[in-house]
Amino acid sequence: MTKEILTGLGEECGVFGAYDFDGDDVASYIYYGLFALQHRGQESAGISVTDTDGESKNVMYHKDTGLVNEVFNKNTLNSLKGNLGVGHVRYSTAGGVGRENAQPFVIHYQKGILSMAHNGNLTNASQLKEELSQTGAIFQTNTDSEVIAYLIAKERLTSETVEEAVKSATQKLAGAFSLVVGSPSKLIGARDPLGFRPLCIGRKDNTLFLSSESAALDTIGAEFIRDVKPGEIVTIVDNEIYSDRICPPVAEARCIFEYIYFARTDSCIDGQSVYVSRTKAGAILAKNAPVEADLVVGVPESGLAAAIGYSEESGIPYGMAFYKNSYVGRTFIKPKQNERTSSVQAKLNVIREVVKGKRIVMVDDSIVRGTTIKNIVKMLKNAGALEVHVRVSSPPFKFPCYYGTDVPTSENLVACNNSIEEIRQGINADSLSFLGLEDLQELCPGLEFCDACFTGNHRGGVPKEEVDMKACSSEKIVF
Amino acid sequence: MTKEILTGLGEECGVFGAYDFDGDDVASYIYYGLFALQHRGQESAGISVTDTDGESKNVMYHKDTGLVNEVFNKNTLNSLKGNLGVGHVRYSTAGGVGRENAQPFVIHYQKGILSMAHNGNLTNASQLKEELSQTGAIFQTNTDSEVIAYLIAKERLTSETVEEAVKSATQKLAGAFSLVVGSPSKLIGARDPLGFRPLCIGRKDNTLFLSSESAALDTIGAEFIRDVKPGEIVTIVDNEIYSDRICPPVAEARCIFEYIYFARTDSCIDGQSVYVSRTKAGAILAKNAPVEADLVVGVPESGLAAAIGYSEESGIPYGMAFYKNSYVGRTFIKPKQNERTSSVQAKLNVIREVVKGKRIVMVDDSIVRGTTIKNIVKMLKNAGALEVHVRVSSPPFKFPCYYGTDVPTSENLVACNNSIEEIRQGINADSLSFLGLEDLQELCPGLEFCDACFTGNHRGGVPKEEVDMKACSSEKIVF
Amino acid sequence: MTKEILTGLGEECGVFGAYDFDGDDVASYIYYGLFALQHRGQESAGISVTDTDGESKNVMYHKDTGLVNEVFNKNTLNSLKGNLGVGHVRYSTAGGVGRENAQPFVIHYQKGILSMAHNGNLTNASQLKEELSQTGAIFQTNTDSEVIAYLIAKERLTSETVEEAVKSATQKLAGAFSLVVGSPSKLIGARDPLGFRPLCIGRKDNTLFLSSESAALDTIGAEFIRDVKPGEIVTIVDNEIYSDRICPPVAEARCIFEYIYFARTDSCIDGQSVYVSRTKAGAILAKNAPVEADLVVGVPESGLAAAIGYSEESGIPYGMAFYKNSYVGRTFIKPKQNERTSSVQAKLNVIREVVKGKRIVMVDDSIVRGTTIKNIVKMLKNAGALEVHVRVSSPPFKFPCYYGTDVPTSENLVACNNSIEEIRQGINADSLSFLGLEDLQELCPGLEFCDACFTGNHRGGVPKEEVDMKACSSEKIVF
Amino acid sequence: MTKEILTGLGEECGVFGAYDFDGDDVASYIYYGLFALQHRGQESAGISVTDTDGESKNVMYHKDTGLVNEVFNKNTLNSLKGNLGVGHVRYSTAGGVGRENAQPFVIHYQKGILSMAHNGNLTNASQLKEELSQTGAIFQTNTDSEVIAYLIAKERLTSETVEEAVKSATQKLAGAFSLVVGSPSKLIGARDPLGFRPLCIGRKDNTLFLSSESAALDTIGAEFIRDVKPGEIVTIVDNEIYSDRICPPVAEARCIFEYIYFARTDSCIDGQSVYVSRTKAGAILAKNAPVEADLVVGVPESGLAAAIGYSEESGIPYGMAFYKNSYVGRTFIKPKQNERTSSVQAKLNVIREVVKGKRIVMVDDSIVRGTTIKNIVKMLKNAGALEVHVRVSSPPFKFPCYYGTDVPTSENLVACNNSIEEIRQGINADSLSFLGLEDLQELCPGLEFCDACFTGNHRGGVPKEEVDMKACSSEKIVF
Repeated sequence: MTKEILTGLGEECGVFGAYDFDGDDVASYIYYGLFALQHRGQESAGISVTDTDGESKNVMYHKDTGLVNEVFNKNTLNSLKGNLGVGHVRYSTAGGVGRENAQPFVIHYQKGILSMAHNGNLTNASQLKEELSQTGAIFQTNTDSEVIAYLIAKERLTSETVEEAVKSATQKLAGAFSLVVGSPSKLIGARDPLGFRPLCIGRKDNTLFLSSESAALDTIGAEFIRDVKPGEIVTIVDNEIYSDRICPPVAEARCIFEYIYFARTDSCIDGQSVYVSRTKAGAILAKNAPVEADLVVGVPESGLAAAIGYSEESGIPYGMAFYKNSYVGRTFIKPKQNERTSSVQAKLNVIREVVKGKRIVMVDDSIVRGTTIKNIVKMLKNAGALEVHVRVSSPPFKFPCYYGTDVPTSENLVACNNSIEEIRQGINADSLSFLGLEDLQELCPGLEFCDACFTGNHRGGVPKEEVDMKACSSEKIVF
Repeated sequence: MTKEILTGLGEECGVFGAYDFDGDDVASYIYYGLFALQHRGQESAGISVTDTDGESKNVMYHKDTGLVNEVFNKNTLNSLKGNLGVGHVRYSTAGGVGRENAQPFVIHYQKGILSMAHNGNLTNASQLKEELSQTGAIFQTNTDSEVIAYLIAKERLTSETVEEAVKSATQKLAGAFSLVVGSPSKLIGARDPLGFRPLCIGRKDNTLFLSSESAALDTIGAEFIRDVKPGEIVTIVDNEIYSDRICPPVAEARCIFEYIYFARTDSCIDGQSVYVSRTKAGAILAKNAPVEADLVVGVPESGLAAAIGYSEESGIPYGMAFYKNSYVGRTFIKPKQNERTSSVQAKLNVIREVVKGKRIVMVDDSIVRGTTIKNIVKMLKNAGALEVHVRVSSPPFKFPCYYGTDVPTSENLVACNNSIEEIRQGINADSLSFLGLEDLQELCPGLEFCDACFTGNHRGGVPKEEVDMKACSSEKIVF
Repeated sequence: MTKEILTGLGEECGVFGAYDFDGDDVASYIYYGLFALQHRGQESAGISVTDTDGESKNVMYHKDTGLVNEVFNKNTLNSLKGNLGVGHVRYSTAGGVGRENAQPFVIHYQKGILSMAHNGNLTNASQLKEELSQTGAIFQTNTDSEVIAYLIAKERLTSETVEEAVKSATQKLAGAFSLVVGSPSKLIGARDPLGFRPLCIGRKDNTLFLSSESAALDTIGAEFIRDVKPGEIVTIVDNEIYSDRICPPVAEARCIFEYIYFARTDSCIDGQSVYVSRTKAGAILAKNAPVEADLVVGVPESGLAAAIGYSEESGIPYGMAFYKNSYVGRTFIKPKQNERTSSVQAKLNVIREVVKGKRIVMVDDSIVRGTTIKNIVKMLKNAGALEVHVRVSSPPFKFPCYYGTDVPTSENLVACNNSIEEIRQGINADSLSFLGLEDLQELCPGLEFCDACFTGNHRGGVPKEEVDMKACSSEKIVF
Repeated sequence: MTKEILTGLGEECGVFGAYDFDGDDVASYIYYGLFALQHRGQESAGISVTDTDGESKNVMYHKDTGLVNEVFNKNTLNSLKGNLGVGHVRYSTAGGVGRENAQPFVIHYQKGILSMAHNGNLTNASQLKEELSQTGAIFQTNTDSEVIAYLIAKERLTSETVEEAVKSATQKLAGAFSLVVGSPSKLIGARDPLGFRPLCIGRKDNTLFLSSESAALDTIGAEFIRDVKPGEIVTIVDNEIYSDRICPPVAEARCIFEYIYFARTDSCIDGQSVYVSRTKAGAILAKNAPVEADLVVGVPESGLAAAIGYSEESGIPYGMAFYKNSYVGRTFIKPKQNERTSSVQAKLNVIREVVKGKRIVMVDDSIVRGTTIKNIVKMLKNAGALEVHVRVSSPPFKFPCYYGTDVPTSENLVACNNSIEEIRQGINADSLSFLGLEDLQELCPGLEFCDACFTGNHRGGVPKEEVDMKACSSEKIVF
């Protein structure tokens, strides 16, 4: 929500799981864990818990549309009694905000109850749905999670254990998934073979955790144990972590945008610090696109680390050019087109004394539609900046993502339709440079990543209903 | 809710369907239809609609816990665009109030989308669930509707039409069901072969309706066409009503309590006026249990018609002894045990001038726990009634119902444990008579009915998990 | 709300007070008391309490728009700790629903805190406001209560006791008021000298009560002690009731419509049973406007008692012709003009079997605009009634009320503009009779009453800003 | 809210006014203006508007507890029609959150309607209330605004104009006030003679504005015109600004904490940039309390600018050590004492890669209780910081504030009870320095300010009921 207003990009979900082997309730852990993952999804939130020592092995859950803060109050949180639990925060595109799509997804099936939280997007969901439909399946939501749940339930008919069923089911999935599954007495994590979305394991005393990001472990004071590997299935039971694989290792394709923009600056994914990736991106820009200037500033929040990197590499001082209003919430009334103020102005203001009379390097993480950055450049110049040199810590966005990032259609991707010089003129910058495709590897040395949004190389597959939509629009964007 | 506070009995659901062949929206019809059926369920309400001329044949729906009034506002109602729709009001026992159990139940399956509303209780739901589970089915709710939807989806794989699938599916069901199913271009009604719950057809101009009760047709100004027969499936399409049967006719078992208590006094079920049934019950009581008295009064609302019948037959004048406060709503704070007032007092008050110095015949429709009627007798005597003769327009309640009535367990059924004389003493009445089992047929001449709650003759079957619970408790109730 | 939909008349408020000399909390008493008075006002509700033994003598209160049920939940009710309290339910016309006008009205003034609840309408409020303004007073609401509070505060500067201040203040008031005032250790009731609105005293153990109607005392199991007399001030302190007078007795003017329509049928006002008044009205109609017919029916709720009176006097049997849907609440979506159903239909339905083929006498309490009764006559005829003879248990409404009844302006009073024969034709009745002006005295033998709405004889004065509005409109109403 | 969780300090309110001389609605301007001032108060928000060309000169308003975002939706905002308006955001201590204390405060008085918004705290409110009470005044709220409104209403009786009345009224006030008053056709601003709280004037086209801070003018795209001077009254009418004075200029006492902590970094108060004040404070600390270190970091948000100042002066690089979670809202469930996480951890996390192995200078704006900073030092050390040198950009807090800052009582002020060395040990810092009292003047060259919270020199007076509470507690704080 907050992020979107500035960038137009959306992430799809955060997942969290906890299993306390001392038998204490975990709902409060999950609440603070989800709160730490709130940036990954602001549309809905939910927690499910099971008492693994209870007779009934029943699952209690509460989920609804809204922020973690809004969905839970003390009463609902305290009423969730159980020492094994799963949590979820959800981002969703306009059509699917509905309450019925909120997660965790809780089902009764032959072997009892499962709850599940999913981050990512399958690329063969419609085929799988079609196949399941032909056996008489019915679907009550639009979520991939329902498809996965069905597959697990089907596989469980012939599997010895629930983790075997998860393994067989995930072998059928294409695309991106980081899954947390709660069974009556096991907590299971699974990450797709290409490793699009992050997932890691933590521990605090006798409680084990699964989390989309390591920062959520910090928040609850847990120790980071390790990442779940791409293609790995981990089963947490009896205070131990058991590991299996969906399939033999393949070339991986972790989402580069987690490092550039999505993940928290204080998270570490697959051994790579997000902060370090961002400062490196800034440093590369400083090397490859130097400019004579007086001050480097970053667009909050995700541009700040890259700006620090640019400043360190270039020797140009770092400055704090913007005040960001953090009260923009879900119910913020966006100014109408042509109204007297803009969403950007409502959210960001320039600190005049910082930029007045200066030549500014302004670092941002990406350009989507271009209108926001145009507004920000204008605000800087109105505040007295002599020059504004825009440096973007990612390559130009040109292709849709099918793996869990909500990228606008190509008509709304400025880089799809305009040359860099046209964009520069459109946003009225004195110069403009993007990170090069060839630079990306330096952000995550030694890691394989997905760059489909920049290159169109969709290694995780393309949903069959989208095959024709990959090409760039040919219409130029009018600023 | 309102009803329960006085009686302790609960009904399970009302259903409504509408199909406008001129293509106009039907949500408003369904709203007023459900409003007219509100007495059948106050826990949740919902409406789903389809635009049968639209490209997408998508289904829009809105449902939530609460009264029809509370669940819908002008915005939500106006946003439901479509000329074919299904509505539902739901009663539910404490454990299952949850939002996820609200209906209509909307599913995507191989052939598109179905929405469904169900009144009644299956007696083989757990077996069917078990069977479906063994094919990998997953369940997201505790409703019978989900089971039925699964069966329809399975059958649809091999059926030529959706109505064929409904037919095959309903052939597998045991127990009570009055179903309304909306497919992309057909509105289907089905009633179980024993005809436990009512269902009827109406028309207004080019709109055809299905409704639990005829009174809802009156409310929207529609004409009553006919009842759906026990075991019948009707398919409404192209402005016509097509009829088929689930199975050949069998001995029927319509719920006698619809006539005695559940249905609106102004409804007519299977050709029998509810009002007439009730006045007849009163008249029979007057004949069989006469008493010398000055005034006949009824306990609002359902006792009033029987009181009028008693008065007419006996010649004893009819009087209005009670003021009923109609503002008791879902959020009414019930007085605590031992508190300074009682729920009965909050809801009913005696009009002193009517009863003072008089010998009263008080007619009520049933006695469940006995505490309410004890309170009312006391209120009458406190107001100066010289004698209070209680006449009950149904036989004593002794057995559970598995077909959609929420009867307390036998420990809370006074007639299960106490003799009539003991009950009379317990409620402090000067005399007490119930309607005889042998009198019931007179209430619905020519109609076959179910009297399991009085006799234990459960012709619709008993759920396997309940088999042992049929016997009466041996503990007496202490008033 | 409910009432209005059928009649177009609105009442303005109910008041309740409680003082427990054992020191126990009274909020729960007041809750059930207000619940019993809900018919007097559905727009807002509130309760204020003081702990008379506490150091601080602080006042806690909770009030908001909505029904008693909606405004209070267990938490808010339990949080109101105090043994002396004041409650209020409010009706209000469209313009003034605002939360800020909810009562009780709580003020800090020189001597501490007062809370106050008021039923009635002052006719000199604007003059008093003007006078107070000229001393620098500021007004935060549109309520008469604020004016009264100011006067009490002013008088308290020179009065020895708070009851003296109430006395001096009320001497300045013109129009209608039944007041309940809570001071830190006294509960005070006052009723205007003409006695427009009711107010009575009750007791239960060591708790004393003030209530708009006696029925609210029944609801909480309290004993009716006596009415507060017109012009009387009662001060409840030390478990005693002290009496004083605002002024020497004058000719009284209690609102006749309390007996005909507003008050609960089970209340007793100034020694006169409301039920008896209504049955008498019916009996008078039977004597003065007899007709050959088969059945007498009443329009629920307020027409029922009069119908019983007509039936008893005429010997024509009484019948229950209507089913009333009691779920019409504040948020009921009224059908649009020209829509497919009407508010009347949504609320009332005819029981066909009762009226079919019969000549009907239909008794209602009043005719305001005429459209509702027209609809009901039509419903009866559609159901097969051969004739419908309308009998109205009040004279024709012709003048506004300035004493707390919300009567429509004269353009919307059918009797103001049309002859009785024109009305009869308009509503399509076979005959139509109103109660005569000369009959009113019989309803309340020995009591003086106000009949201004029928005669224009406004004995309580006319607000200066309304002087020119008394005349009847000359436009006929088109049905 | 957000701020408090980290610091324990609270601000009391922001005010905003707008007058569009083209006659267009101003509610939307005020909405975004208040949104920009949200940091000054998160408990309630409100907007009142008048149509100055309308016949009635009525005032419409909407106010409630909650954030600006939560209090207003599109409907409520659009319904506020008027070209002159007043807005308010309110901070309040626990006892006075109530809805009835929300502002703007709207009154009817002799000359019509006034609406008013107030920032600051009077020190003679209780005396003024007492005096007013003795003339019969009644009080419905606990706000100073009600007292001020009374005084204006009283003075208006003898004043020729409303601005004269405001002048006479404000002459009676002691303490802090920045007022915005809307009369039917004038918008008036007033600032107390000592100038405790800020207030400034802006313009956009033909609309004039009053605002607590200049940043709110930037947000709506308005031009800053000038500050309202201490002791000045400005009257905006006919598109002109008229100036008058409450009294001749006196030695001023603007709140130094506006510069250090309260105001937005991008605001400019009385000609002094808040950003510049903060960086100067950092620079002074660098000069006066140098230390050998590797990195300077600031505690978000208010410590960041001072950290930049320290870095620039010392030459030690500036770094971004913390990730701040901006989703902490009003309904955030604070972890219980002894629970598994802390509010600080939920809100802030250290970016390990930034601080690991480094000697850190950590700059924060103030220390109140000390527990928060102790937690943050601990987090830095846990993340691998070798040394943590704490630099505080204000002198130690020792005295209460009576002018609108919510400072804890002295038992909770660590500097009141412990020596600096004791605090250093308590928070486990390697060194600790505060800004010196003698340095404060450098932050705001040429401006007179109030330093009562550091020195006890309460130049704006002390409320009589607080006189004895000035002394420091003698109990040491145990960390």
